[in-house]
Amino acid sequence: MDTTSLIGKELAAAINADTKQRAAALAETGAAPRLALVIPNDDPASAWYVKSLNRAAERNGIACENVDLGVDATAEEIRAKLTELSLDPSVDAIMLQTPLPKGVGLDDVSSAIASAKDVDGVSPLSLGLLAAGLPGFPPATAEAVVELAKFHEIPLAGRHVAVVGRSNVVGKPLLQLLLAENATVTIAHSRTIDLPAVTSAADVVVAAVGRAGLITADHVREGAVVIDVGTNEDENGNITGDVNADSVTGKASALSPVPGGVGPVTTALLMRHVVQAAESAR
Amino acid sequence: MDTTSLIGKELAAAINADTKQRAAALAETGAAPRLALVIPNDDPASAWYVKSLNRAAERNGIACENVDLGVDATAEEIRAKLTELSLDPSVDAIMLQTPLPKGVGLDDVSSAIASAKDVDGVSPLSLGLLAAGLPGFPPATAEAVVELAKFHEIPLAGRHVAVVGRSNVVGKPLLQLLLAENATVTIAHSRTIDLPAVTSAADVVVAAVGRAGLITADHVREGAVVIDVGTNEDENGNITGDVNADSVTGKASALSPVPGGVGPVTTALLMRHVVQAAESAR
Repeated sequence: MDTTSLIGKELAAAINADTKQRAAALAETGAAPRLALVIPNDDPASAWYVKSLNRAAERNGIACENVDLGVDATAEEIRAKLTELSLDPSVDAIMLQTPLPKGVGLDDVSSAIASAKDVDGVSPLSLGLLAAGLPGFPPATAEAVVELAKFHEIPLAGRHVAVVGRSNVVGKPLLQLLLAENATVTIAHSRTIDLPAVTSAADVVVAAVGRAGLITADHVREGAVVIDVGTNEDENGNITGDVNADSVTGKASALSPVPGGVGPVTTALLMRHVVQAAESAR
Repeated sequence: MDTTSLIGKELAAAINADTKQRAAALAETGAAPRLALVIPNDDPASAWYVKSLNRAAERNGIACENVDLGVDATAEEIRAKLTELSLDPSVDAIMLQTPLPKGVGLDDVSSAIASAKDVDGVSPLSLGLLAAGLPGFPPATAEAVVELAKFHEIPLAGRHVAVVGRSNVVGKPLLQLLLAENATVTIAHSRTIDLPAVTSAADVVVAAVGRAGLITADHVREGAVVIDVGTNEDENGNITGDVNADSVTGKASALSPVPGGVGPVTTALLMRHVVQAAESAR
């Protein structure tokens, strides 16, 4: 079977074209949308991601400010900064970068981000709004999976989707988005017994577990669609997915590449969220 | 195959014995725990449920106040009352009764319940705290399913549980509780294609959809456990479940009865939540 590549570039470009226009309209009538990146680490991968967000913001006409708190920031300091930015009317959107300093949990600080500015949907309230089907920002990675599937005309309503991974940033919010699309959803994880049997029952398999090459042909039934959310760094510094692409190619009907699949769509959706937050605030 | 009845009475009694003791301890050192029931309807089923909560509170040494807002209450009036009770230090716990007046959605008002007093876990923040694994009250019905299974020594970790129903009050929170127990969870609903095939793949089937007798032997594999959350009123005013008990008996290894299964455990957990809220507040 031919395996279609679910490339994200074209969709990301379409989203960005719209975002750029909306950002320009905001800039004309007042100020450009403004995103604050709060950085409480000195992690190279985080620095690389911050740079890519800076560039994406610039390309879209979004003002982006890096708020460096240093690797020794306490939970109180991080919360105080997030609260200050939440109250600052000149800031439209806030993203907190991970990893957090030792001993600080995301849950200790994320609730200090006002949900109207929580463009990556990390706070408990944002998670709850999503679960309740109320207005709020879903985590961009989870949303990117659904948008990528829709763009490539993969039906979700009534279909059985298996999500491997139950994180608060991908697995759990993705489940809510898939239910909203009327999919039947199975959520599997490290404690699942006989993962290949569970995922082979699904029409669509989403790998969001953070283990390079975990999903092989044994996990996928003939003709299934596979979406790879993994971004694992190999020993040479290359990004690889959670799916063993060589193994599933020829058995799956479609597979999203890593890099170049979910990733670019995630960044484009984050920028769209910034513009949406700015539009709502003004 | 013999089908064990997953009766809730004994577990409910054990929970209530503990609750009663803790309520008495609170009353001795200050005041009895206090629950406010906010009633914006004149619905007979709601009135019946309010009476049963009043009795349960009385039996457990919990002060219970019925706040009748009438069937014409507006969303603003309901929110104002919920806010007032949330700020009142003499009130430990708040439950909003449904149905709500015409045109008022639960989502329009539930966020006015302070999460520390939201003993039935209905607000978006409570849903999000549950999803994030943070302290908060889960909806009692969802928690009752898990507690009933544990009491009857039904293993959940690693097992495949199918939940039929995706409501904000049962299906979605139950999913979070089951993931926290390390179950593999499938959530199915009215739009699921081939429901019998989906549920037959599971070790445990939970029916929480509100359609009398929907789940039959065709939906359950030999030896599976079936938990029935349904409370449907038939034409004679009797309560029946979502499971056709005659049909699954002999095929399932265990089935919770309706009434007498999940129901009494739900009420007992609500009363426990009231005491927990009071203990945290003092």
